Amino acid sequence: MSAESRFLTLLRLLANDPAAQGLSDDVAVLPFGASRLILTSDTMVEGVHYLPTDPPQDIGWKLAAVNLSDLAAKGARPVGCLLNYALSGDEAWDEAFVAGLGEALDRHAMPLLGGDTVKMPAGSARSYSLTAMGEATGPVPTRTGAQPGDRLYVTGPVGDAGIGLSLATADPAASGPLVEAYRRPRPRLAEGALLAPVASAMMDLSDGLLIDASRMGVASGVAIVIDHIPLSVALEKVRGASVAVQIAAARAGDDYELLFALPHGVAPPVRAIPIGHVADGSGLTLKIDGAVIPLPDSLGWEHG
Amino acid sequence: MSAESRFLTLLRLLANDPAAQGLSDDVAVLPFGASRLILTSDTMVEGVHYLPTDPPQDIGWKLAAVNLSDLAAKGARPVGCLLNYALSGDEAWDEAFVAGLGEALDRHAMPLLGGDTVKMPAGSARSYSLTAMGEATGPVPTRTGAQPGDRLYVTGPVGDAGIGLSLATADPAASGPLVEAYRRPRPRLAEGALLAPVASAMMDLSDGLLIDASRMGVASGVAIVIDHIPLSVALEKVRGASVAVQIAAARAGDDYELLFALPHGVAPPVRAIPIGHVADGSGLTLKIDGAVIPLPDSLGWEHG
Repeated sequence: MSAESRFLTLLRLLANDPAAQGLSDDVAVLPFGASRLILTSDTMVEGVHYLPTDPPQDIGWKLAAVNLSDLAAKGARPVGCLLNYALSGDEAWDEAFVAGLGEALDRHAMPLLGGDTVKMPAGSARSYSLTAMGEATGPVPTRTGAQPGDRLYVTGPVGDAGIGLSLATADPAASGPLVEAYRRPRPRLAEGALLAPVASAMMDLSDGLLIDASRMGVASGVAIVIDHIPLSVALEKVRGASVAVQIAAARAGDDYELLFALPHGVAPPVRAIPIGHVADGSGLTLKIDGAVIPLPDSLGWEHG
Repeated sequence: MSAESRFLTLLRLLANDPAAQGLSDDVAVLPFGASRLILTSDTMVEGVHYLPTDPPQDIGWKLAAVNLSDLAAKGARPVGCLLNYALSGDEAWDEAFVAGLGEALDRHAMPLLGGDTVKMPAGSARSYSLTAMGEATGPVPTRTGAQPGDRLYVTGPVGDAGIGLSLATADPAASGPLVEAYRRPRPRLAEGALLAPVASAMMDLSDGLLIDASRMGVASGVAIVIDHIPLSVALEKVRGASVAVQIAAARAGDDYELLFALPHGVAPPVRAIPIGHVADGSGLTLKIDGAVIPLPDSLGWEHG
């Protein structure tokens, strides 16, 4: 067990309220009055979750987007957020960060409500947290509800952000749709709101399609079969569509598309790409062009 | 204007929801159904908000306590919190932190609902944030409501934590009530709940009595007269009660007592120490033994 896994085990002892869901989901769901509050918090660390060379406005955008994506996966309406910010010592940098954060918040009607601003000692990597709150008035999908026979979909292609990260790592001045996918993910709030009432299970793709789908399978106690890995035109243009490229795309993180299961025969109410189905049993099966492919050693980004 | 002040000005442009109160309070107050959600978030940075030699269980306790204290100042009942934690690389340290955090959360019936755990690059100072949510079903006091004629009170003596910090800085193994006051502040939740319906204004003392009282005066558009600085027996025993000691105690932060204003003639519903009154006009007047004392250059801890 990794240090982080052991630490999470300790935290679960404190998270004994039903709203915490045993810390097994990306969010907490808290009944409040007639509706439910959806709570989520994500931290981004310099050099770990973003490149020190990434433009500050994109880092600000992304911090908002990853939290909004967690709300999207619950079909929740953004209510407000709190920012924990570590000043950079460079005012133009901080200003650009706030501009990008504000752009993402405005775009998705998420007011900033408060937070805390601190200085870090010189030489420290900085980190930023955003805690976001949403409201769900209808059903709140979890990752535990996938049923044998369900069809699996994603709201868009996978792997763009992973290639974008490689391109931005090699050249901080790189641009184009793949780098944009990595730096400016678009939370699928409208799609999530339409899907929440009909999806048997839903989650956002943050760590990679294979690992996230596998987690949905474990949480739901079902087997997952993926028979299609959707690639974007932009990705195919740069890397082609070989089996190796498809597997790499399915292992890449930071996509922030929604992965969801619908009962067989239910048409997705949003533009969506079918990628497989849910079956009896357990485990993940990957098929490419109809052939079963051995799973890679690592399915995606494992925390810790 | 400091870098932090300029940064807060930028953030205020994003905080255009009435719940954010223009980021002028420690908390956001969000109407939700029949009650109000109180939201607050505090970050503690190694070497800035705590000593690297402080015991990890006390750092965990304090992170919970400072957030709970913000809820106390609103008379709110704790509902839940989210933790942003940076792993230390030392499992025993992390375990002790969680134990102290858990002790404070359990004591005040605050469930942990979620959050995020990250690793920092080697050599970085670490930081921890807690975002706390409370519910207020009655009136929510602000710092803007103090009226000329009101009497000012605190729920306990001031300055203990400041001396405790000096003692712990000189000797990490120091112990006793003053070090305890610095490392294990007690959020005044019960007092806050009883005071909220009657106080014209209330806030917790985090940066020092003089600066916090002065902020209440500015926010309320009134003058503040402080004519008594309450010292604990433990503090007097170590430092005496000279005018210099009293001023130092009134400038010291981290007390987490509640400062509140009551209309003249209203008896405090909790144990409280009268420290002065509210008057027409503006500014802060400090009297010790009946004589007006020139204000020190710095009234307390100024962020940034």
